[in-house]
Formats: sequence, C-alpha cells, structure tokens
Amino acid sequence: MNSIITISRQYGSGGREIGEKLAKRLGVPFYDNELITRAAKESGFAEAAFENAEKKATNSLLYSIAMGMNAYGNQDIGFTHLSLDDQIYLAQSNVIRKVAMEGPCVIVGRCADYVLRDMDNVVNIFVWADLDYRRERAINHYHLQENKAEDSILKIDKRRANYYNYHASEKWGRAENYHLSIKSNYVGIDGAVQCIIHFLENGERR
Amino acid sequence: MNSIITISRQYGSGGREIGEKLAKRLGVPFYDNELITRAAKESGFAEAAFENAEKKATNSLLYSIAMGMNAYGNQDIGFTHLSLDDQIYLAQSNVIRKVAMEGPCVIVGRCADYVLRDMDNVVNIFVWADLDYRRERAINHYHLQENKAEDSILKIDKRRANYYNYHASEKWGRAENYHLSIKSNYVGIDGAVQCIIHFLENGERR
Repeated sequence: MNSIITISRQYGSGGREIGEKLAKRLGVPFYDNELITRAAKESGFAEAAFENAEKKATNSLLYSIAMGMNAYGNQDIGFTHLSLDDQIYLAQSNVIRKVAMEGPCVIVGRCADYVLRDMDNVVNIFVWADLDYRRERAINHYHLQENKAEDSILKIDKRRANYYNYHASEKWGRAENYHLSIKSNYVGIDGAVQCIIHFLENGERR
Repeated sequence: MNSIITISRQYGSGGREIGEKLAKRLGVPFYDNELITRAAKESGFAEAAFENAEKKATNSLLYSIAMGMNAYGNQDIGFTHLSLDDQIYLAQSNVIRKVAMEGPCVIVGRCADYVLRDMDNVVNIFVWADLDYRRERAINHYHLQENKAEDSILKIDKRRANYYNYHASEKWGRAENYHLSIKSNYVGIDGAVQCIIHFLENGERR
C-alpha cells in the first residue's frame, strides 16, 4: 500500500475507529490527536489552543469577519498578523504535509484531503451514517446524554462542515471531494475497513 | 443478492456501464432506457416525450414557474392538471416502483434512489470521475466533438442535478444520499463493479 489515506467523517459514524483499524491492518501510522500534539510541540502553540480551533469556526462569514478577512477568506497580511486560529491551521497543515512526505499513513480530519490536494498518492475517504446509528454510538462510545445527543451531533457536524468550508473553500460531504464515500451503518465498522482495503487494492493495481 | 441497486452518475463517469456490468455479474435485470420504454408503453406517453423530460428541467425555480407551481415545487391541483413533464415523472416513478417490487435489479438514473426511499432493501450508489477522464470517455464512447466535450459534460451534469434537485428535493451528489460513492477513474470500470459487489456482500452479511 503506497497511499496516504485521509478520512473525513460525520460525528458518531465511526470514521475515527475505521481509520485506526485501517492503519493497523495496513501497518502504517495513524494520525489524529497525535497529529495535534505533534503540531503543537513543533510550532510551540499550546495543545489546548489546537483543540479549540475547530470549535471556533462557527460559520465562514462570521469567522472571516472575526479574522479580519473579507467574506471570501482572502487576506493579504503577513503570517505574523494572522489570527491564532489561522496560525494553528497553517501549523497543522505543515505537520500533515510532513507526515505525508514520510510515507503511507492514515490521517483523520483536519482538512487533510485539502491540505494534500497536490500530492498524487492521496486517497480521500468520507464516512457517514444514519442519525439513529450515530446517536447510539455517541451515547455508548462518547457518553453523550441521551436527550442531548442528537443536538450535539448536529452541532459538531456543523462545526466540522464550517471548518472545512472555511479552510478548504470546498463543500464538506460532497461525493466529488472523495475517492470513496461509505455509509458505515450499512457495512459496519469492520466491513467499511474491508471495503476501503479492497478499493485501495483495486486502485493501486491499475 | 437481495438488493435493489440504484446508480446515480456524472456524465462520462462510466456509471451506466458499471450498472450494466454489475447487473450481469449479479444476474439481475438492468433498467435504463429500457425502463423509459416500458414506462412509455404502459402510460401511453410517447417515448420521445420521456427522453426530453430531463432536458427541460433547466433549473428548479424557473421549472417550477413554468409548471405553474410555487418555488418549493408544491402544487395542489389534480393529476390531470399536471404538466406533461410531471406526468412523465409520475409514470416513471410508478414503473420504478413496479420493477423494484418484482425483485433485485439495477436501475440507473431517473431519481430512482428518491422514488424508492421508503423501501428497506435499496442500496444507492453514486459514480463520479475527474473531468479529464469523463472528457476522454465522452469523446471516445459517445463521440462528442473534442472542442465541445467539456462544455457538454458540464451542461448535462447541470441538467441531471437540476432534475434531481427539483424532483427529489435533495442535493444531487451529496455523499449522504448514497450508501457508496465511487471515483471510477481511480479503480476503473471493472474495479468499481468489484467494489460495489464487495460492499453489497459485506452489507447483506450483517
């Protein structure tokens, strides 16, 4: 397997678990919070600031205004004048590029598909699932309160979409952004891992 | 294989060919223009009118106005007062439901995923590909003129999107509408067929 695999996922769809199992099956490194930690250390930013980056992008217009940019996210000021959030995004992007250069791996979230868009051997995966399935996972795996789970899922997904739409200037969840999009509750976590491996094998054989 | 498989596809992505090969591999009927013919015969409409239905939906608002509906596509007039296009859509939908009730099959296009949304054993697939790949296929398989191919591809896709967005009130090409979305030029036509079968096997085993 020679590919860098990025995984974007709806909250509660099992995308992270799929990524982890996939990395294990392929024998390649897996990056998620680990990536954040590494980026934080290398750039000198506090880890907490990194963890908040996604949460702050409430919507791209408001976010742009807050960042002192125009509605299209353009800014022509120097790096030192970038907001903390944007500096974090740039630092994360550098780390993503660095680990991708080191060889095959699995990277979950953080717009990695967009960051690595100019590399040839990148395969982008999107994982989604029915809301009921995600609700159950959110309660059982992430211990969300039953009566608040649905609301939290929708809010977290909205944040992820806004973060992606703002930084990547693309629409999160559009089939066209990904080599493969999978409904995880149809095939299950292990089934999804299986399908991705099968897809990669078919793709790399060509 | 117990599923009804619907395939939505970008023009030139090979989605139709994938559907046909898939049906052959699974030993189930394949519906595309055949479906149109059947619907035409049963409802008494001319085949030509059916073939034009997709082309006329230039955009949902204009289309609604032309149909005498409001911007949301609501209409509370009787069937006999429906536009020809809407009558055709309803007739097509009836045929899609009928063939789906007859057993496992592959249906390409015609909003079949939306028409069959209440059935349990439906698996929806989306096939897309890079523009260069589609351009080459359009020229070699559908004999489009080289200098006009790209323009035609984009126009046909816009029509398909409008047709879907209008009739299905959903966004065409959103990963969430499909169990599986595949980039055909990564795995190839036969690779895509292979992946879909693998996906179905994993899903039905659960």
